Amino acid sequence: MEIELITIGDEILTGSVINSNVAFISRELIKLGYKIGRHTTLSDDIKIIKEGLQTALARSTLVITTGGLGPTIDDLTRGAAAQLFDSPFHLDLSIVKDLKERFGELPISLEDQATVPSKALVLPNKVGTAPALIFDKRLILLPGVPNEMRTFLTNDILPYLQKHYPVVQSQVQEELYFCQLSESLIDNQLRLLQQKYPQVNIGIYPDLGTVMVQLKSVDSNSLYTFIEELQKEWKSYLLPCSKIETALMNICIQSIQKLIFAESCTGGMMAAKITSQAGASQYFLGSLVVYSNELKQKYLGVSDRTLREKGAVSKEVVSEMLEGLFIHTEADYGIAVSGIAGPDGGSPSKPVGTIWAAMGKKGEIPDLWTFHTQLNREGIILLTTYRLLGALYRKIVFGIAGGE
Amino acid sequence: MEIELITIGDEILTGSVINSNVAFISRELIKLGYKIGRHTTLSDDIKIIKEGLQTALARSTLVITTGGLGPTIDDLTRGAAAQLFDSPFHLDLSIVKDLKERFGELPISLEDQATVPSKALVLPNKVGTAPALIFDKRLILLPGVPNEMRTFLTNDILPYLQKHYPVVQSQVQEELYFCQLSESLIDNQLRLLQQKYPQVNIGIYPDLGTVMVQLKSVDSNSLYTFIEELQKEWKSYLLPCSKIETALMNICIQSIQKLIFAESCTGGMMAAKITSQAGASQYFLGSLVVYSNELKQKYLGVSDRTLREKGAVSKEVVSEMLEGLFIHTEADYGIAVSGIAGPDGGSPSKPVGTIWAAMGKKGEIPDLWTFHTQLNREGIILLTTYRLLGALYRKIVFGIAGGE
Repeated sequence: MEIELITIGDEILTGSVINSNVAFISRELIKLGYKIGRHTTLSDDIKIIKEGLQTALARSTLVITTGGLGPTIDDLTRGAAAQLFDSPFHLDLSIVKDLKERFGELPISLEDQATVPSKALVLPNKVGTAPALIFDKRLILLPGVPNEMRTFLTNDILPYLQKHYPVVQSQVQEELYFCQLSESLIDNQLRLLQQKYPQVNIGIYPDLGTVMVQLKSVDSNSLYTFIEELQKEWKSYLLPCSKIETALMNICIQSIQKLIFAESCTGGMMAAKITSQAGASQYFLGSLVVYSNELKQKYLGVSDRTLREKGAVSKEVVSEMLEGLFIHTEADYGIAVSGIAGPDGGSPSKPVGTIWAAMGKKGEIPDLWTFHTQLNREGIILLTTYRLLGALYRKIVFGIAGGE
Repeated sequence: MEIELITIGDEILTGSVINSNVAFISRELIKLGYKIGRHTTLSDDIKIIKEGLQTALARSTLVITTGGLGPTIDDLTRGAAAQLFDSPFHLDLSIVKDLKERFGELPISLEDQATVPSKALVLPNKVGTAPALIFDKRLILLPGVPNEMRTFLTNDILPYLQKHYPVVQSQVQEELYFCQLSESLIDNQLRLLQQKYPQVNIGIYPDLGTVMVQLKSVDSNSLYTFIEELQKEWKSYLLPCSKIETALMNICIQSIQKLIFAESCTGGMMAAKITSQAGASQYFLGSLVVYSNELKQKYLGVSDRTLREKGAVSKEVVSEMLEGLFIHTEADYGIAVSGIAGPDGGSPSKPVGTIWAAMGKKGEIPDLWTFHTQLNREGIILLTTYRLLGALYRKIVFGIAGGE
């Protein structure tokens, strides 16, 4: 069976709101072994909604919609579905009672929320006002407010699906996340493994600094042997979770290691990624964003002479930056980075995208390395950030030196 | 004309990745006056992609896809479109040359990226490897990597659309951007102005820290009088451009003011926003991301006693943090911030979302103020960042104290 998701609302279509509802519903359904056939977003237009529902119902076993169930003039999903299933409306007194208990005397707009299609199964809304509706066991209408949608999905819809559409032969799905590894490098091995295990379905999704490999198969033996071979080959690149910053946080908290950074070209992005995680204060001391040479000298003791003779983007400067971090703090591991994020400031010997990094453990000889990135400013900053966080993760876990 | 967006990729369909690409593309197109008819997400399956493209092309003037253009085995969009337009493939030597210059000798997978449908217009990818393709002026294929997609959209696709599908602007459209102003506050005045100028169409789009007011009318006199009244009322909240960080950069460079920050709860995000702008090094000295109390004492001279007696989130601590910045550097303006980003760490007297800020000009008495934000961790960090950057902009331009 295939499930289709339809989102209704101009705020999604115009990009005012990012559609996180469909990602949530999809994840929950996939976990239970269901297959998602398609996502569609439709405008607040009753004709378009009706036609969209009809097409989806003709194509898929089950359709779940979000949005357009509220009390205002642009909420049209309920009406469209009722037309499609040729259903009259009636006032549901149990909903009126429930709404009155929670909201007091009802304005007209709330009475409207209790007026439901007679042919639909009505599920009361415990956190908001609009009830969810199920037509003919095949069309499920949920509110678009994320909190209400999630409550319905978890408490009502997933149990309903498991009862009426038990998953017979679910295919197994696994996702592997790699850092510091290029898509084309791992692709070669995936092609070889694909020939060996043709039953396994492969998806590769590169992001800045990580590559996600998604594997699916009805034959779980093949799948897990495939994964074993992949893990053996790329062990030190494999992340235990989807994000580098989470992997780094977990290993640092576990092994009681404190981190500190000195950032020039990344301009605070490394610190921002680390502190985006709740729990960062357990292992992250902070970051000196020494964007100007003045701060590099003042706070890290980089010498005026090194800056003049070697330039701010050099092995010598990042080395002194890292040294400065360890002199003044109790950090265990540190990273110092300096580079040219562009679009200006490049030269023939140090073009835009040139990065120098120093990384090390207090008391040990640091790793110093350079790399070059062909992206725009935003990309250079982000890719450098993830490369360095990934390098630090691999150093702490596997003892691998930066740049290797 | 109507534009449809199609996303291709199982990672979106399964909910592993939230589809932020369509929101971005939609916003950019809407700004230019185009209309978005539908969003669809399809699986990595060549039959489904082909059928999906066909249906969309039959229904809409123009179709833009993202995803499925990479060099790996699950990248099928190019093939599906070529079949639909009955196009053979050829090796494009200019792309081979460009890729070799940027990536060295090509593995097979990169040679594949230079193999393009002969009937398509080929746009070279300046930041990644997959070129964008345009078939018959009606089907535009873009890569799914957000950074590459955005670069193509801004540099190539929007100008292409404006050339080939000029929007007949019978109506004038203007956008005003405000910072430090709540949606509901400006909404009241907009309702009054709406009654006075019924010919003017109003849209309000709040974002973290800014509110965009979009005004459209066929009657340009009404529109500009409307705008004048609005500007008069909210003069000191009005930004000269769409982004706070750009406004701040321009005024600082113009008036030769140097900035420095001390960040605790924003964790480097303020610095990251500032340094996202090319040109930041002209006025931004840097930021001390003093996440731990150890660094607050070491680098800013915050006293142990103040930290113990008042707590890290207090008027006294941000005041000492700001003082510390001015003692050691040549900055003209500084901001110091400390708060509870959550989800843990709150208390009845200082709940999650409590922020203390200090802002000032060197040698002057600083502004000290507190505010509270009801968002999740990510929201608290971003909203605090934009509120403080907005407050600094208003202080430099209008002399308005922080928190007012």
